[in-house]
Amino acid sequence: MLRPPSMSRQKVSPSQVPILWSQAQAVCFDVDCTITKQDALDDLAEFLGKGDAVRQITHQAMNGDMDLDLALQERLKIMAPTVDSLQDYILSNPAQGRLVDGIQELVQELQARNVPIYLISGGFRELILPVADLLKIPRNHIYANRFVYMADDDGQIRVHGFDPTEPTSHEGGKPEAIRRIRAQKPFQTIVMIGDGITDLEAVQETGGADLFIGFGGVIERAKVVKGADWFVNSYQELIDALPRWKVAMIGSGAFASSVAQMITHNVAKKATFNNRVDMYVYDEPFGDTTLSNAINTMHENPKYMPGVKFGENLVANPDLQDTVKDADLLVFCAPHQFLKNMCQQIQTVVKPTAKAISLTKGIHISPTDGPQLLSTMIRRMLHIECCVMMGANLANEIRPGGFCESTIGSHSTEDGEIFKELLETDYFSIRIISDTEGAELAGALKNVVAIASGFCDGCELGENCKAAILRQGLEEMREFSKRLYPTVRDETFWESCGVADLIATCYGGRNHLVAQEYAKRAGKDSFEQLEKELLNGQKLQGVLTSSEVQAVLQTKGWQKSFPLFVAVDAIVRGLFHPKDIVRYRTVAAEAELKDLHHVNSEPSLLEKRLSKSMRIQNIIHFDDDDF
Amino acid sequence: MLRPPSMSRQKVSPSQVPILWSQAQAVCFDVDCTITKQDALDDLAEFLGKGDAVRQITHQAMNGDMDLDLALQERLKIMAPTVDSLQDYILSNPAQGRLVDGIQELVQELQARNVPIYLISGGFRELILPVADLLKIPRNHIYANRFVYMADDDGQIRVHGFDPTEPTSHEGGKPEAIRRIRAQKPFQTIVMIGDGITDLEAVQETGGADLFIGFGGVIERAKVVKGADWFVNSYQELIDALPRWKVAMIGSGAFASSVAQMITHNVAKKATFNNRVDMYVYDEPFGDTTLSNAINTMHENPKYMPGVKFGENLVANPDLQDTVKDADLLVFCAPHQFLKNMCQQIQTVVKPTAKAISLTKGIHISPTDGPQLLSTMIRRMLHIECCVMMGANLANEIRPGGFCESTIGSHSTEDGEIFKELLETDYFSIRIISDTEGAELAGALKNVVAIASGFCDGCELGENCKAAILRQGLEEMREFSKRLYPTVRDETFWESCGVADLIATCYGGRNHLVAQEYAKRAGKDSFEQLEKELLNGQKLQGVLTSSEVQAVLQTKGWQKSFPLFVAVDAIVRGLFHPKDIVRYRTVAAEAELKDLHHVNSEPSLLEKRLSKSMRIQNIIHFDDDDF
Repeated sequence: MLRPPSMSRQKVSPSQVPILWSQAQAVCFDVDCTITKQDALDDLAEFLGKGDAVRQITHQAMNGDMDLDLALQERLKIMAPTVDSLQDYILSNPAQGRLVDGIQELVQELQARNVPIYLISGGFRELILPVADLLKIPRNHIYANRFVYMADDDGQIRVHGFDPTEPTSHEGGKPEAIRRIRAQKPFQTIVMIGDGITDLEAVQETGGADLFIGFGGVIERAKVVKGADWFVNSYQELIDALPRWKVAMIGSGAFASSVAQMITHNVAKKATFNNRVDMYVYDEPFGDTTLSNAINTMHENPKYMPGVKFGENLVANPDLQDTVKDADLLVFCAPHQFLKNMCQQIQTVVKPTAKAISLTKGIHISPTDGPQLLSTMIRRMLHIECCVMMGANLANEIRPGGFCESTIGSHSTEDGEIFKELLETDYFSIRIISDTEGAELAGALKNVVAIASGFCDGCELGENCKAAILRQGLEEMREFSKRLYPTVRDETFWESCGVADLIATCYGGRNHLVAQEYAKRAGKDSFEQLEKELLNGQKLQGVLTSSEVQAVLQTKGWQKSFPLFVAVDAIVRGLFHPKDIVRYRTVAAEAELKDLHHVNSEPSLLEKRLSKSMRIQNIIHFDDDDF
Repeated sequence: MLRPPSMSRQKVSPSQVPILWSQAQAVCFDVDCTITKQDALDDLAEFLGKGDAVRQITHQAMNGDMDLDLALQERLKIMAPTVDSLQDYILSNPAQGRLVDGIQELVQELQARNVPIYLISGGFRELILPVADLLKIPRNHIYANRFVYMADDDGQIRVHGFDPTEPTSHEGGKPEAIRRIRAQKPFQTIVMIGDGITDLEAVQETGGADLFIGFGGVIERAKVVKGADWFVNSYQELIDALPRWKVAMIGSGAFASSVAQMITHNVAKKATFNNRVDMYVYDEPFGDTTLSNAINTMHENPKYMPGVKFGENLVANPDLQDTVKDADLLVFCAPHQFLKNMCQQIQTVVKPTAKAISLTKGIHISPTDGPQLLSTMIRRMLHIECCVMMGANLANEIRPGGFCESTIGSHSTEDGEIFKELLETDYFSIRIISDTEGAELAGALKNVVAIASGFCDGCELGENCKAAILRQGLEEMREFSKRLYPTVRDETFWESCGVADLIATCYGGRNHLVAQEYAKRAGKDSFEQLEKELLNGQKLQGVLTSSEVQAVLQTKGWQKSFPLFVAVDAIVRGLFHPKDIVRYRTVAAEAELKDLHHVNSEPSLLEKRLSKSMRIQNIIHFDDDDF
């Protein structure tokens, strides 16, 4: 964006203006008559009874008819305020009353988009600080002049002049300030907004701003109107032209539907989001139409979450590529077996600037790369950032008037904040942590512990025993996560994604309920059969995740450290009775012996697991606690 | 115990012998013919084909008829074994086959009592090491001779003599070894056991042993029989005379009865404990007899835990002082309101060497000292050590065939191990941690969270909400504990006493169930009324603990950091509807305002709390989840 030095700079082409504005990485504002309704020096002069004389010089300077340094010096000489009179002026003119209409809203909208704001003013720092504080602009983002004081012979401390080392005290000071900003942080696109000639200069020098927006809401100057890339009289114009995050949901099961309900209402309320939400629906016949048609007509998912109303701003779309192609924010909420294939389908159409969040629980076992987090898979396949949201979020209980918590794990705080804005409601409270890996693994592994807890309840082993199993499960979840990713933190497991999700899943979740029934029938009916019978053909993440965890344990030789995980798998495979979960330590040891016994006569268990996992990924359409 | 040097030392008086033996702080054994059945050098000589010549010299030396240095030198000269032949000998004579009957059991019994064992031998270190390893005696507890090797001209490395700097190579070496042991650790009472004259010497010099036990199981020497303080031919005699921990249970409610069942069976099986267990029973009429009589006849507690059989070695005793006066181990398991009064009663009769463990949950609020742990109160009032046991231990589910876990918090690992020996069974698994304060506070505070969880279930707020409440509860439990005791560790809350106890209590506990009913009736019936109705007059710890926690929060000004604790208390006091637990943060803020409103017109809430807490401590007989 840097241009060769030239005063005859070409204006930005009209078609490029809205693009630059929507891509602004920093916005710099002039202050007097841009953010505030008066020129503060004129106003101060009025306060001091020297209004007319000073205003005349100001006018000359802003029209470019008088040298800036000289104008400043002249005005200060006329006013010569004392420290006390300055303080009187500031106290009697609170910042709130000085703001131009709409500026506060514009600043908030920019801040909501994580766009840093700078103030670059030929006015004085003392007079600007209250405005900056009110607008929550950091004080180190202010470039302005500083008064120099001296004492009169009678002891009065009085303004004597200004600090000539501040860039804004000279001609060309505003582009210089922008160069200094760039030197601190290499912003790609900087926008300058102001009402005067000196503001226009900011875009006319090398290293200056990339777009100049003239503001005529207080004063309209002909030279500025002429030189501006874009001239506006109201900040609403700029607000309206700000980018809005476009959201795509990928998935339409029970959990996806609960989340979509919250998202559709949030985007309708918040200006940072595009009002329309697209939802990818794996289409299937529904009555005499298709599921996607039914959703678009009824504004709910009549198959997986009947009665939960989406906003009318949700559009169900059976075409995955079409759903995601314009999206800035991708919300992955599909069963984990389908994710890889989905990512392959959309690799070429996803915007390179898009951000993703995964709500899916599971571990991807790659035959070449070994175990992989789903967020890692998304990140690698789509070349975009991906955070996760995990928590005690049973789908059918997420509803207005209720209360639940969730955890966003995000390497970038900014991305976490954006998705929190999108997903949080007054009945769905979110905390952000940086330990993405810990949050995601907790979400996946708890489904394995839920199977153990189902065995406890099915065999009526009591609350002491179940609590002991959950404690051990939590210990193995932490240990497994920390061994796979040394950055995982114990603290993560205190969050909703840890202990709370485990509790909710082990008392109200689907994995737990099916495992309980499996135990009640003493393992006589297979999990597949029970899934058909109890879940209307939907499947469980827990059984598959258990198998994937075993593949990791076997590959790494970690079985001895994870007796509960080993025992769950052995019981699921029918090697032991579900009630044997109570003696998981001995079961784990015996299971290893049994497996060793088979090792020569059959394909290795690991091979079988991998082929089973891949088979499942290809053929089964299933659902889970959260979907 | 140190005596002036004298070879005409008086023997220990017969009445003192068993006392010294039972108070032994270290026991030193000779090795040859004391721990092993042969003299190793004789045996080695036999192995080398030089048996007769060597045996003759050994015999002279052990009878005191030959100078020790000379005898040793002579024997080595005759044998002159090579390194290879030494190794052959050691390999072909495994330690297990060389042990005297009963020595392994005696050593284990001493080790179970944390009595360190030393080996002091005129034999050679190389030949003793396998025996020490087998008996789990640390290698730095061996005092013995060392071979000195030299090479023959033909290159054979051969024993040439012994290291003359080892004390055991000279006359008076054994008392010298004991002096060295004393110099490392100031044992009060050291016992020497051996078969020879040199062993007897160990007790005949200043700084030597305090008691000499002659052992005649292999060889009986007249001089040793005559000089020994005690002469035994079988180690069973010594095992039988070892001290056994005498146990007293203080409390006889449901939880105390479940624990007593385990204790009575453990002490019957383990020699470290006295077989008799005394249980203090707060006596009351039962049918046409008293509860204590009924317990002693039926060997169960027919009122609070019918059907759970104690061993017949349990004696119910309605006299508290009589129950504890001989006890080495005190198990406190009474409701926390009674503890202070009980400690006052027994202050003068408790053995100063006794150790205590508290299974009681609660916080003692002292009007002068503020909040106090119950274990601290016991420690201060009785001047003995006190550890705690807390965990997911609902009383009626502790049974053979079941499974549960618990946590002992003990500042001393040794005390923790003793109580673990006493309390652990195959269906009751214990882990020891050093964070006594964290374990105890977790046990007390979880009852407050259980009330919140009861509100959730009573108002059908769902599993997501309940999991969120438990997560917040756990967070406040940790924070409260760490603020009161900065040594408290987060890790403690991963243990059974933390997350597992919380889960069991919030799903199966009594506090939870009564709070659930309170919520179902929308708070119309008071807790006191519900306790009468549902618990047959027994009371809840949770409501009282909640009030005690509030007293702490108010005294310290911590309310803002503990919104869930504040909200539970406000709902219990009837200021809000139980369903308001879902918005505990706002409830906490509003509760503070309501309380402020009353502050001038009434006695302060803190004053009321303290007086209520003290009133309850004086008048109410109650029980809890665990009692």
